[in-house]
Amino acid sequence: MTVYLDNAATTRCCKSAAEYMMRLIMEDYGNPSSLHAMGVKAEEEVKTARKKIAKTLKAQEKEIVFTSGGTESNNLAILGSAQANRRAGNHIITTAIEHASVQQPMRYLEEQGFRVTYLPVDSHGILCHDALEEALDEDTILVSMMLVNNEIGSITPIDEAVRQIRNRCKHALIHADAIQAYGKMRLNPKKSGIDLLSASGHKIHGPKGSGFLYIKDKTKLSPILFGGGQQKGMRSGTENVPAIAGLGEAAVLAYENFDEKIDRMYGLREYFIQEASRIANVTINGSLGRESAPHIVSVSVEGVRSEVLLHSLEEKGIYISAGSACSSNKPSVSRTLEAIALRRDLLDSTVRFSFCETTTKEELDYTLDCMSEIIPFCRKFTRK
Amino acid sequence: MTVYLDNAATTRCCKSAAEYMMRLIMEDYGNPSSLHAMGVKAEEEVKTARKKIAKTLKAQEKEIVFTSGGTESNNLAILGSAQANRRAGNHIITTAIEHASVQQPMRYLEEQGFRVTYLPVDSHGILCHDALEEALDEDTILVSMMLVNNEIGSITPIDEAVRQIRNRCKHALIHADAIQAYGKMRLNPKKSGIDLLSASGHKIHGPKGSGFLYIKDKTKLSPILFGGGQQKGMRSGTENVPAIAGLGEAAVLAYENFDEKIDRMYGLREYFIQEASRIANVTINGSLGRESAPHIVSVSVEGVRSEVLLHSLEEKGIYISAGSACSSNKPSVSRTLEAIALRRDLLDSTVRFSFCETTTKEELDYTLDCMSEIIPFCRKFTRK
Repeated sequence: MTVYLDNAATTRCCKSAAEYMMRLIMEDYGNPSSLHAMGVKAEEEVKTARKKIAKTLKAQEKEIVFTSGGTESNNLAILGSAQANRRAGNHIITTAIEHASVQQPMRYLEEQGFRVTYLPVDSHGILCHDALEEALDEDTILVSMMLVNNEIGSITPIDEAVRQIRNRCKHALIHADAIQAYGKMRLNPKKSGIDLLSASGHKIHGPKGSGFLYIKDKTKLSPILFGGGQQKGMRSGTENVPAIAGLGEAAVLAYENFDEKIDRMYGLREYFIQEASRIANVTINGSLGRESAPHIVSVSVEGVRSEVLLHSLEEKGIYISAGSACSSNKPSVSRTLEAIALRRDLLDSTVRFSFCETTTKEELDYTLDCMSEIIPFCRKFTRK
Repeated sequence: MTVYLDNAATTRCCKSAAEYMMRLIMEDYGNPSSLHAMGVKAEEEVKTARKKIAKTLKAQEKEIVFTSGGTESNNLAILGSAQANRRAGNHIITTAIEHASVQQPMRYLEEQGFRVTYLPVDSHGILCHDALEEALDEDTILVSMMLVNNEIGSITPIDEAVRQIRNRCKHALIHADAIQAYGKMRLNPKKSGIDLLSASGHKIHGPKGSGFLYIKDKTKLSPILFGGGQQKGMRSGTENVPAIAGLGEAAVLAYENFDEKIDRMYGLREYFIQEASRIANVTINGSLGRESAPHIVSVSVEGVRSEVLLHSLEEKGIYISAGSACSSNKPSVSRTLEAIALRRDLLDSTVRFSFCETTTKEELDYTLDCMSEIIPFCRKFTRK
C-alpha cells in the first residue's frame, strides 16, 4: 500500500489540469505576446485562468498576477512592497514562524537597511496580539503573516490582526502568505482587508512552477523581474500558459464541493489525532479542531528521531515529512517548533503528516498500524 | 496550410519532452526537498536534466542553475552581478539592441545609481568594437551582450569582444544572453571566456516556464529570489521538476544531428532571402550567410505596415511576427531596427520570419507565394 501524506510539500497534479496543460504544451502553444491568432488564443487562456482565480477570491481579474510559484509570489509581495514604499517608512513586521520564502527576503531587506520585527507566537503557533500592538509604529510599511503555518497547521486570526494594524497604521500594506491556506479555507482578501495574498499551484493539485499574487487594486508595488512588460509590467517574461491554465483549473476544483471536502478532512484529522495520541508518549503540536488547517498534523514522538521514523514509514510505503521539508533537504532545527517552545528533546523527534482531499480512512488506519508497530521498535534501539 | 514561422517567439514543445513532463506531473510528482523516496526520485530528475544541459555546454553540472525562463535568467545574471560586485565598481556595459529582459534590468540599475553604457551597433547589428574599447574602464563590473539578436538574427563576435574586455578589465563579469543562440550555435562558455550565459526552454521546443543560467564556477553572484535555499541558495523555490526535465530533454534533442539540421536551416534561410528579395522593394535586414543565426529573417516591405502584412498572412494560415513580438503585444518602435539605422519609413514596415528544425521548403514556398500576392495588393491600399 502506498500512502502519500506529504501533501503540504507537494501534491499530485489533478488529471483535468494535466490534460489541459498537455493541450497547451503540444497544440495551442502560442506566445501570448504574438499578435497572430495563436498568440491571441494563448492570451485568452491566460485571461480565462485569471478569471477563475479571481472568482475563488471574490477579487477582480486585474488583481491577479501569475508567478513561477509560491516563493516568487512571496518575494514579489515583500521585496516589491519595500522597494515601492521605502520613502514612507523602513519598518516591516512579520512573525517568527514564517516560511523561508518570507523569512529570507526579510533578512535581505535587513541587510538593505530595513528594520524588521519578528513577532512571537504562543504555544499553539498563534500570533501574540500584544506584541503586534507594540511593534506597530508610524514607520511600518508592511506586515507579512502566513495564514496557515506549513509545519503545524495553525491558523492566524487574520481579521483581528488586520483590525489592529488598521487602527495604528492606515497605510501599511498587509501581506498574507496563503500558500497552505488557499484551497483549504475560504479567502476574501478585500473583505479581510488584505492587500497582498500569495498562493502556489502545486499545493492544490495544480502544476509546479505556477502561483499567483493577489494585488489589491491601486496597491503600490514594484516588480522584481524586469523585461517585456507582460502582466502590465508587474511580472515580465513570457507567460507560462500551460502552468497558468493548469493552476486555474486546479483552483476551480479546489473550491468545488468545498464544505463537504473540508468537513471530511477535518473528520479524518480529528480521527488521526485521536488514534495517534493513544500511542505512548506521542503528542500533537498546534491546535485541534477548526483552529487548525484541515490537512496538517504535527506529531512529536518522544525517543524517536524524525528521520528514523520517516524512513521506517517509507519502507512501509508511507510518505511523510520530517519538520517542514518543503524548504531544504538538509535537516535543521525548525524555527516554528522552536517558536512554539516545543520541548528541546522533541525538536528532532517531530514529523508532519499532511492530507489531501482524496486521503482515506483506510490509508490513515494503515499508517496508524505501522506507527504502532514501528515506534516501540525504534525506541528500543535509541540511546537513552 | 498552416505555417508557423514565429519560432523565435515560442516553439512547439517536442513530443518526448511533453510525454516526459506528463509522467512527472502525474506520477513521479515528489518535491525534491522531501527526504523520502518520492523526493529523492524528483531530485534525481533535476540532477539528470542538469547533467544533460551541462553536457551541451561542456560545462560542469554545478554551473547550471534552473530558472523560470529567459527573463529570470537574464535578471539573475544582471541584477545578481550588480548586487554581488557593487563594491568593485558601478559601471556596466551593454548594447543598444538587447532584449527587454536585459535592457529593463539595466534601466532599474541606473535608477539604483549604476552607470550603464549602451554600445552602438553597425548597420548589420554588429557590436562596434571601438565603442567597446572606449567604454571599458576600471569601474566596469559587468558586460552583457546578446549572442544572437532576436529581431534580425545578427551574431555578436563574442570571442573578439571577450579578448577586448579581458585586455582592459580582468575582473569584469561577462554575460551572454544566449536565448536565441542556444540550440542554434555550438556554445562553450568556458572556452569563450563567458562567466554567465542565459537560455530559455520554450525557444528550443522545450516547455514554457523553463530556463537556465550557466554560472561559471566561483563567479560572485547574488540570488534575486530568496527562500528555502534550493539550488545551493542561488534559486530558491520548489524546483519545477517537469519543466526542468522537459528542458533537459529538449536540450539533448536540439544538439542531436546538429550540423545537419543547422546546415539545412541555413540553406532554407538563404533560399527564402533570395526569393523574398525578388519581390519589388523588399529588403532583408542583418547579415547573410553564417554571419547570422540560421532561424531568423528580418524583412522590410516598403509601403506595407507590418501589422497589415502580419494579419494578411495570418488569413492564409501563416504566423509571423511584427518587429520582435516576443516582449509585449503593444506595437512600439523597435530599438534594434533604430540602432541599425533602418530607414525611418521602414521601421513600421518590418516583419520577422523565424524557422525551426522542421520548417520545410514547401512551407516557405507557400509563404513566398502568399507574400507575392499580398504585398502588391496591400500597397494599392496604402496612402502615399
